[in-house]
Amino acid sequence: MILYHSIAARSFRPLWMLEELGLPYELRMMAFPPRVHDKSYLDINPCGTVPAFFDGDMRMTESAAICQYLAERHPAARLNVALDEADYGAWLNYLHFGEATLTFPQTLVLRYSRFESPERLQPQVVEDYSRWFLSRLKTLTPRLEQNEFLCAGRFTAADVSIGYALLLAEQLGLHTSFTPAVAAYWQRLRQRPAFLRAQAAEQAAALAQGVSSRPATELPTEAI
Amino acid sequence: MILYHSIAARSFRPLWMLEELGLPYELRMMAFPPRVHDKSYLDINPCGTVPAFFDGDMRMTESAAICQYLAERHPAARLNVALDEADYGAWLNYLHFGEATLTFPQTLVLRYSRFESPERLQPQVVEDYSRWFLSRLKTLTPRLEQNEFLCAGRFTAADVSIGYALLLAEQLGLHTSFTPAVAAYWQRLRQRPAFLRAQAAEQAAALAQGVSSRPATELPTEAI
Repeated sequence: MILYHSIAARSFRPLWMLEELGLPYELRMMAFPPRVHDKSYLDINPCGTVPAFFDGDMRMTESAAICQYLAERHPAARLNVALDEADYGAWLNYLHFGEATLTFPQTLVLRYSRFESPERLQPQVVEDYSRWFLSRLKTLTPRLEQNEFLCAGRFTAADVSIGYALLLAEQLGLHTSFTPAVAAYWQRLRQRPAFLRAQAAEQAAALAQGVSSRPATELPTEAI
Repeated sequence: MILYHSIAARSFRPLWMLEELGLPYELRMMAFPPRVHDKSYLDINPCGTVPAFFDGDMRMTESAAICQYLAERHPAARLNVALDEADYGAWLNYLHFGEATLTFPQTLVLRYSRFESPERLQPQVVEDYSRWFLSRLKTLTPRLEQNEFLCAGRFTAADVSIGYALLLAEQLGLHTSFTPAVAAYWQRLRQRPAFLRAQAAEQAAALAQGVSSRPATELPTEAI
């Protein structure tokens, strides 16, 4: 398996999953955003985004979908929730919720607060989607007040999907508005050995491959 | 099964799936956006969005996840792609791509071109995310030049996920920029008997329940 990845980008989800599952993989680091730094990357992923993930000839580009794929292909680890478990529907829901509802709004905050040229920054959009993100995130609170993880009484790929949104929120400074239950959940996730191994792996690969080891949120605008 | 739905909103995805599968369901129509017209809806879905979908006690709110759920629970119809089929990964990818990559950017176009008060409209964001949507959508063209549907040589829930994004694009006027292969695919999808039954069902339910039968894209701003 080959994973194209930029430091702390959405592709961190499949990287984290690969470490949770203990699978062998090759990590190819890309400067962010890859389509700007390396036009040939469009041959690998025509959308120009990370992740691009290959399992043999099979290519995937949606990070939460790759998490489900890996979980379903390696069921012994029980990072999937099976069709006959009561939380199967909740599991699918949180896999999508982590990306479509909790990550996309944050990319607007990132884009219009940091990446655009000064005359194109949009403080109103940054405010609109910071509030939007936090109001949706808050809906997880009742479940996290009662449960260590989101589904099925155990850590699953759904926690990876949501967990990445919390990592991005911390990088954007939105974590100071987490509810106590969400903040405690985030601390549990970020201390997992596989999470820490994934962070070590991306740093080591960036160094070995001569790519910046800083996340996009810390890059100066002129570098993007 | 109970589906909370607004005309032509994302909840059209599960409605269309239910019609494809021929399953019995109860359709509860909500004026758009539901959280504004009916505060009690927040007890049904704390995010305030449609869909809210119930299968017994089990609640889901992410439209593409509900499509997968229904397809997996009713495999005889083969709207799912099984783990041992070559296109399993592609299927998961398109389920997510339809919402996270192709629908969310259009909601920005809708919000900042129509729903906000005049001083909060954002022509730059409308332009940014119209282009963003069309550039991502274009990546489907090579596959659709060779295949009638996206995965596994047959119509699946992935086509429902992508198909809704194309319906929204038509309502926003973005369909005039579809590539020929995408435009032909959209015509195939919208002519499916189950798609037409879903449209008839939402109109009939809106009339019976005293809710506006116009899609959000056609509502005057003051109604929202």
